[in-house]
Amino acid sequence: MSDIARIVSEIAEEMRQRPDRGDVATYIPQLARVDPNAFGIAVVDAAGNVAAAGDCEVPFSIQSISKVFTLTLALGKVGEGLWTRVGREPSGSPFNSVVQLEYEHGIPRNPFINAGAIAVTDVILSGHQPREALGEILRFMQFLSDDRSIYIDEAVAKSEKATGFRNIALANYMKSFGVLENPVDFTLGVYFHHCAIAMSCRQLAMAGRFLAMHGFNPTTGCPVVPDGRARRINAIMLTCGHYDGSGEFAYRVGLPGKSGVGGGILAVAPGKASIAVWSPGLDATGNSHLGRIALERLTKAMGWSIFGA
Amino acid sequence: MSDIARIVSEIAEEMRQRPDRGDVATYIPQLARVDPNAFGIAVVDAAGNVAAAGDCEVPFSIQSISKVFTLTLALGKVGEGLWTRVGREPSGSPFNSVVQLEYEHGIPRNPFINAGAIAVTDVILSGHQPREALGEILRFMQFLSDDRSIYIDEAVAKSEKATGFRNIALANYMKSFGVLENPVDFTLGVYFHHCAIAMSCRQLAMAGRFLAMHGFNPTTGCPVVPDGRARRINAIMLTCGHYDGSGEFAYRVGLPGKSGVGGGILAVAPGKASIAVWSPGLDATGNSHLGRIALERLTKAMGWSIFGA
Amino acid sequence: MSDIARIVSEIAEEMRQRPDRGDVATYIPQLARVDPNAFGIAVVDAAGNVAAAGDCEVPFSIQSISKVFTLTLALGKVGEGLWTRVGREPSGSPFNSVVQLEYEHGIPRNPFINAGAIAVTDVILSGHQPREALGEILRFMQFLSDDRSIYIDEAVAKSEKATGFRNIALANYMKSFGVLENPVDFTLGVYFHHCAIAMSCRQLAMAGRFLAMHGFNPTTGCPVVPDGRARRINAIMLTCGHYDGSGEFAYRVGLPGKSGVGGGILAVAPGKASIAVWSPGLDATGNSHLGRIALERLTKAMGWSIFGA
Amino acid sequence: MSDIARIVSEIAEEMRQRPDRGDVATYIPQLARVDPNAFGIAVVDAAGNVAAAGDCEVPFSIQSISKVFTLTLALGKVGEGLWTRVGREPSGSPFNSVVQLEYEHGIPRNPFINAGAIAVTDVILSGHQPREALGEILRFMQFLSDDRSIYIDEAVAKSEKATGFRNIALANYMKSFGVLENPVDFTLGVYFHHCAIAMSCRQLAMAGRFLAMHGFNPTTGCPVVPDGRARRINAIMLTCGHYDGSGEFAYRVGLPGKSGVGGGILAVAPGKASIAVWSPGLDATGNSHLGRIALERLTKAMGWSIFGA
Repeated sequence: MSDIARIVSEIAEEMRQRPDRGDVATYIPQLARVDPNAFGIAVVDAAGNVAAAGDCEVPFSIQSISKVFTLTLALGKVGEGLWTRVGREPSGSPFNSVVQLEYEHGIPRNPFINAGAIAVTDVILSGHQPREALGEILRFMQFLSDDRSIYIDEAVAKSEKATGFRNIALANYMKSFGVLENPVDFTLGVYFHHCAIAMSCRQLAMAGRFLAMHGFNPTTGCPVVPDGRARRINAIMLTCGHYDGSGEFAYRVGLPGKSGVGGGILAVAPGKASIAVWSPGLDATGNSHLGRIALERLTKAMGWSIFGA
Repeated sequence: MSDIARIVSEIAEEMRQRPDRGDVATYIPQLARVDPNAFGIAVVDAAGNVAAAGDCEVPFSIQSISKVFTLTLALGKVGEGLWTRVGREPSGSPFNSVVQLEYEHGIPRNPFINAGAIAVTDVILSGHQPREALGEILRFMQFLSDDRSIYIDEAVAKSEKATGFRNIALANYMKSFGVLENPVDFTLGVYFHHCAIAMSCRQLAMAGRFLAMHGFNPTTGCPVVPDGRARRINAIMLTCGHYDGSGEFAYRVGLPGKSGVGGGILAVAPGKASIAVWSPGLDATGNSHLGRIALERLTKAMGWSIFGA
Repeated sequence: MSDIARIVSEIAEEMRQRPDRGDVATYIPQLARVDPNAFGIAVVDAAGNVAAAGDCEVPFSIQSISKVFTLTLALGKVGEGLWTRVGREPSGSPFNSVVQLEYEHGIPRNPFINAGAIAVTDVILSGHQPREALGEILRFMQFLSDDRSIYIDEAVAKSEKATGFRNIALANYMKSFGVLENPVDFTLGVYFHHCAIAMSCRQLAMAGRFLAMHGFNPTTGCPVVPDGRARRINAIMLTCGHYDGSGEFAYRVGLPGKSGVGGGILAVAPGKASIAVWSPGLDATGNSHLGRIALERLTKAMGWSIFGA
Repeated sequence: MSDIARIVSEIAEEMRQRPDRGDVATYIPQLARVDPNAFGIAVVDAAGNVAAAGDCEVPFSIQSISKVFTLTLALGKVGEGLWTRVGREPSGSPFNSVVQLEYEHGIPRNPFINAGAIAVTDVILSGHQPREALGEILRFMQFLSDDRSIYIDEAVAKSEKATGFRNIALANYMKSFGVLENPVDFTLGVYFHHCAIAMSCRQLAMAGRFLAMHGFNPTTGCPVVPDGRARRINAIMLTCGHYDGSGEFAYRVGLPGKSGVGGGILAVAPGKASIAVWSPGLDATGNSHLGRIALERLTKAMGWSIFGA
């Protein structure tokens, strides 16, 4: 058993036993009924070895983690021109704030707050039908994970749509400034669906490999994105990936990462590993409570912090 | 000539010739009269070699870069308890905003916006006279740089004080919430003075070594701070070191860094080098225009980005 | 010719000649194509005499002036309980700000900013179909004006709906806080339609009589609202009726009033007169430029200011 | 006994017995130790008759009510030019907010929030020594009240200064935008002292007569201000006189009024009476709880609402 495998296994065991588990998101029934005791972890290292433990094969709703991949697609489609539609500064605000949008005339601060991710989805959608755009996103996830079984949980998407008044507000607000090009319903339809993609930790860690490996997909040996773009996506994950807990995550974990309200976190140790953790209970900033703690343990044990090994 | 020395030399030459130089800060005469054509750079690598070029020996006003060192001192004095007085999240606001303070009841978001740095200075001051606290800060800088010639520019400190109404407002505002313990005048006196420390790029790069070298001071071989603390200070520099241009700096340069309105930037390549650049012209976010560009060149040439070599 | 008739006539003549006319709203074509040289005025005094001049018979889009009448209906329906759904403080913000909504958890500050008027419409709608609610509002206007010819301009309503992203955002944002009870589309449908009611100055001045006459409708001799409620609606018009120009209107005109982006203003001189003016050009705060000036002239000439005859 | 005298007497008796008294301000000891059971009222009518009851002769700290009189003096000194230094729109914010100042570049929204009153004091001070300016303000109060015994409570002024960090912050913040002309300490010294003027309800009602009587001082028969200016000051009192409870006061009382944190309220029934009430307990918006209720009773009984008798 490798060092990584042993450490991953120990972390999973420790997390399984901790009584502090955070609070599971309850705004839609599909998330509310997830088992709060679930914990999964998967690490893919530079050599392609996978170390996984706990509920590492259980699909969960990746939610905002999908924003890393839509950002990647949108940069592929329009390049640096994307930054006329969305900023790349940390927000200092909750993930669904409209205040920032008003002060900055409808331009979201970064692609990882909800407004920014909706703007990014609008870029991917332009020139396509919603169904096509969504298919492109899903196929991209399947390609990166090398796993055709990844699917969209339609019940989650439907619930998100039925209760997503705040996101509808954000989208219409941006539309009023001309930041969205497509009909609001179309853009939001794609957005709600890509947030409803279900993946396991193993699948997610596989999907994140290109960010850890200079833009390459180790399965195919081909670049997914240029080296510099992978670095830049990592930079945005570091500064903006955990909403108003981004500073905390950088301080404690020291890796680029992106969290989702389903309790998942994708983290990247550049040159070393792609990591996915999942524990449904959230902390006060809306990020997975045990997920963050598990990553802190892992980074420390492996010496993977980007701020000094 | 080493690779680093050659690259540093080329960068200095290129920066010397560029016509775009940003705008020199003019709010006090001492900064306004600095030569906009100045450019200096100094790099100290892990082996202790120094590569320097341009105006690398000219002292300039380090201004907010001093906040890295007062943060280090305050953490040494009160440890993690510091975080009850100041947050560590990026601000999404200009460096001197009072809005954030009102919404968060007088607690500054991080130690690198002005309000946060004033709160940190207040921590250092507690139990001391202003003169003693200031002496401690200055001696710390001299010790880290291994250079007793570092001094405080009294004319700068005096001008800052005479025109620093915004900082006086911030300090009194925090005092109204009980965030400051000492008399406002005392705390601000120390703050204005440590921002007025004058250092050259060479001295500054030397002073930053402990952040690049796991907390060690290579001159003495003794730890300045524990390894983990150096990492954590680097994390805060990455997320908060360039005010509302922090995301941009992470995106383009990919190193922890702290800028000052005097045109200096201290950057840290963990495990590899401590770097100081200086060019007085600022960009729209108040950070050195050519300083940032020079660091972008250097990081790319050396493969030092923390987001993927 | 009475004094009022003479003054009204002189004001209309003066306004007709002034070169400064403000800027006509252009966000929908139906408003953009209105003649900027139009000016109408109508005054109904306590004895029921009507003095009118200029384009006093030309119907214009009353827009936000309709909010006075929906407020009256909603108070009639749920009484003081209305104030759990909307506040009654001036806003200190533009008419369509979302910032205030975020800070006050979805409760609009007053019934005259857009968000507040949408919440009021939602109250009227509850228990009804949109068509019924709209019919009730229209019949109320016809009853108050004693004129069955008042109509809704469907083209305006349709344009408002097609471009009203900001209002859609506000409504969904309130819905996310549970402030709206009905489907957002239903509430907005009624809102966009009642804002599209077209009336002439004469009709509007007639409709406002109950506010000037202690709640009575002089035509029928019956109370429309209790005396105290008329006073209270007047109070809200005074403090909130001109968005972020409410203080200015109180300072210069000294009467309760409500403006609309179509260039109309309804003003009330308690115990003395109901007044309607119309001039399509708006000032920087979105209120009729010449309308306000005309009212200032009239109040001064008649000694009608509520702040001291 | 006149009607007014009887009503005033009944109100005082009712207020004496009510158990709900609000919370006395405690931020300085001088205010905290005031008897919460105190209640005073005084009404001066157009004929000069005084009706008073309860603790109507007890001097209390008028605090922000002084802002009505400094506004009057500043308008006398610089006329309408004053409005380049301060706005006249309701604020929609607490009395000591800095947020509004940041968004409007240091220009306070109106002369009755703290920042605005400090700016007004600065106007009065210009060209004078602080002692002279303060003397002018005090003599103006004595002249208006026709009572030379009115004094400044030095202990209150001193306490305000020692604890007034928020006001010091506001003043320095405005100074940073160039809105204040004089040294901050000078302006604040005068401000803290005029807020510490002590007056009884009788004296205060006398001082407010000119606002009720078209600008005239009935004692001398001479105008204090032009008719139009009295109206305009009344308008500002109506829209801005009770901070974020101004809408509520207009809605319930229907008179221009200005409250102070000492529990006093000066109200004006144009053409009819000047009224002062005092009860130290405050409501959630910082205005006298029983003072407002007493005025509501009085206005209703006398038919004095400006929104419809």
